[in-house]
Amino acid sequence: MSAEKVHIFDTTLRDGEQVPGCKLNKNEKIEVALKLEELGVDIIEAGFPVSSPGDFESVSELSKIIKNATVCGLTRAVENDIKVAGEALIHAVRPRIHTGIGTSDSHILHKFKSTQDKVLERAVAAVKYAKTFVEDVEFYAEDAGRTGDEFLARICEAVVKAGATVLNIPDTTGYCLPEEYAAKIGYLRDNVNGIHKAILSTHCHNDLGMATANSIAGVQFGARQIECTINGVGERAGNTSLEEVVMIINQRFKGQYTTGINTKMLSYMSGLVSERMGMIVQPNKAIVGANAFAHSSGIHQDGVIKERSTYEIMDPLDVGVDHSSIVLTARSGRAAIAYRAKQIGYDLTKEELDIAYDHFLDLADKLKQVEDKDLEQLLKSKIYKIAS
Amino acid sequence: MSAEKVHIFDTTLRDGEQVPGCKLNKNEKIEVALKLEELGVDIIEAGFPVSSPGDFESVSELSKIIKNATVCGLTRAVENDIKVAGEALIHAVRPRIHTGIGTSDSHILHKFKSTQDKVLERAVAAVKYAKTFVEDVEFYAEDAGRTGDEFLARICEAVVKAGATVLNIPDTTGYCLPEEYAAKIGYLRDNVNGIHKAILSTHCHNDLGMATANSIAGVQFGARQIECTINGVGERAGNTSLEEVVMIINQRFKGQYTTGINTKMLSYMSGLVSERMGMIVQPNKAIVGANAFAHSSGIHQDGVIKERSTYEIMDPLDVGVDHSSIVLTARSGRAAIAYRAKQIGYDLTKEELDIAYDHFLDLADKLKQVEDKDLEQLLKSKIYKIAS
Repeated sequence: MSAEKVHIFDTTLRDGEQVPGCKLNKNEKIEVALKLEELGVDIIEAGFPVSSPGDFESVSELSKIIKNATVCGLTRAVENDIKVAGEALIHAVRPRIHTGIGTSDSHILHKFKSTQDKVLERAVAAVKYAKTFVEDVEFYAEDAGRTGDEFLARICEAVVKAGATVLNIPDTTGYCLPEEYAAKIGYLRDNVNGIHKAILSTHCHNDLGMATANSIAGVQFGARQIECTINGVGERAGNTSLEEVVMIINQRFKGQYTTGINTKMLSYMSGLVSERMGMIVQPNKAIVGANAFAHSSGIHQDGVIKERSTYEIMDPLDVGVDHSSIVLTARSGRAAIAYRAKQIGYDLTKEELDIAYDHFLDLADKLKQVEDKDLEQLLKSKIYKIAS
Repeated sequence: MSAEKVHIFDTTLRDGEQVPGCKLNKNEKIEVALKLEELGVDIIEAGFPVSSPGDFESVSELSKIIKNATVCGLTRAVENDIKVAGEALIHAVRPRIHTGIGTSDSHILHKFKSTQDKVLERAVAAVKYAKTFVEDVEFYAEDAGRTGDEFLARICEAVVKAGATVLNIPDTTGYCLPEEYAAKIGYLRDNVNGIHKAILSTHCHNDLGMATANSIAGVQFGARQIECTINGVGERAGNTSLEEVVMIINQRFKGQYTTGINTKMLSYMSGLVSERMGMIVQPNKAIVGANAFAHSSGIHQDGVIKERSTYEIMDPLDVGVDHSSIVLTARSGRAAIAYRAKQIGYDLTKEELDIAYDHFLDLADKLKQVEDKDLEQLLKSKIYKIAS
């Protein structure tokens, strides 16, 4: 059996871009969108057309230039939102309208001061109206993470009947544990009549640090689309990181699931989005952080040098990183010193290494990090003076 | 039934500090350690004494000044390592030696060129020797994530018999999925004779972005200690983030599990460690990122203003953040503008808001972020000119 496709829905330009300080201008959006298409994402959520004239223009512009990926515009379950999105998407080869409404009690009671039945009616009406503009209509049940399963299934069934092609089940507040989120997706897969006509989609937020685990759990229980952003950018603690879910699928679900992503572009994409949005990526960020493939402790360095797979579960080249760097610090062991010395042209004997290592530890206790030039100077002054 | 205690083992000063560029001097280590004790961590892993003279001194110094937390020193399953750790810990009120060895085939074959039986013998000998220095001995089975369950159980049983008080089951390479890690912990809980005499501990790395989910899954299946670091610092993609697991336990397992952490210090600790290590925390980092409680999109702002719990699952005050900031951008809606205007002293009518909002959108399309002063200027020039 061939691997099942998991669609990658990138919302860097919508959910990511609505972050304080991350606004991109039209040219920057075009640049990022073209690269996302090259990366191989299936859907680019390009913006929220009704929200501002600039956003409308960006969605409209991307609709003209993106040819392979689906271009998606967000709306509320509001007639004018949908009409404006339809207009913005008019030139898209593969247009999608993403409409929806809050379905949790918290949303229905506090935000809309409404009832479940009225919210369901609005949802159905929104999908039907969106279908008059485009064939591909995704429905989101906002705050699905805190919505009861029964009502969620009822509203999903109703919107699928109304023509929704994708059901987005967002954990809007990043509240779910993986097993809860998985159970919710599984419940919908098993209890919504006509579910085979639509794709279930995850949309997880990272408030508790579990967006990635929740998205993967969702896929394991039936979701076939993941909504995510480059570097996990997004409001508050952000969205699911595209690079993390893609590499998990690649490394841990080979043959079972697959994505269309060219993983060798991940490191590049991370840098591009970070640079354009002015959003730093911390060094210890999974997959794309500057240290993600760096080894510094002696034990680990020794292991990596003997056999890469001891400490590396991914080949850095697979995500577009040139090499896994060995960084020398006070925690580095003899093996790392010998290895690095050899790389810069010094093949040390056991005795030379012993001497070099003692000097190295003194030096490393003073410096935060020992560079090649420091090591070379040490070897020249301490070893080759002795040896010669 | 009262909530079960989950011990928080902080390794910021050992696993965190061995990161390229993160080395702290002795005074910085003392400063961070005293704050960790105040934060309420149960165990402070203070260093790897044999690794360098500076590290020995730091562990020795922390042993003298830390009174409530356990002070722990790392060793390999090597006699001299253990002896040196014992010396470094001599003044500690609650000393712990953390010793262990790689148990996966990858480690046994490639790194040690040894056999399972020999590795088990070394493990037992190390624990017995460590017990001659301290009562509290933690054993780590390095790369447990990729070690077969049966051998792992066998080695755990043997070291518990030899006196190990804590069993650390590290997912050294960050390779496990939550259900796999949970199954491993559960297997040990159910299959190791004498397991009630020891505490099972999680130690997860974040290479695939799932350290937090794995640690929590471990607790759900029997672990009662989590090894973690402030901001998730650590080699490569880092360790489990202390702030994330603590807040998950607080928010999602109230009454079931508890920790001794004073969560109101989390934001402060994040800043302290980031500053001292020179390791930036990305704005979209869960719990402690600068944006973790910031809301910018119109839909969300409207919700937060009506009822905080709509979009916030935590009270920012609980982690020591003064307020959840509402940031105005092109995605902000009328409600956010009205709210912010009111905060700075302008109570707008519906008509005034309509006018202000149109001008605001133009302004926000130009600026990345609209500050209070920008809004005030806008209101003064566009509204009160008209109104007066």
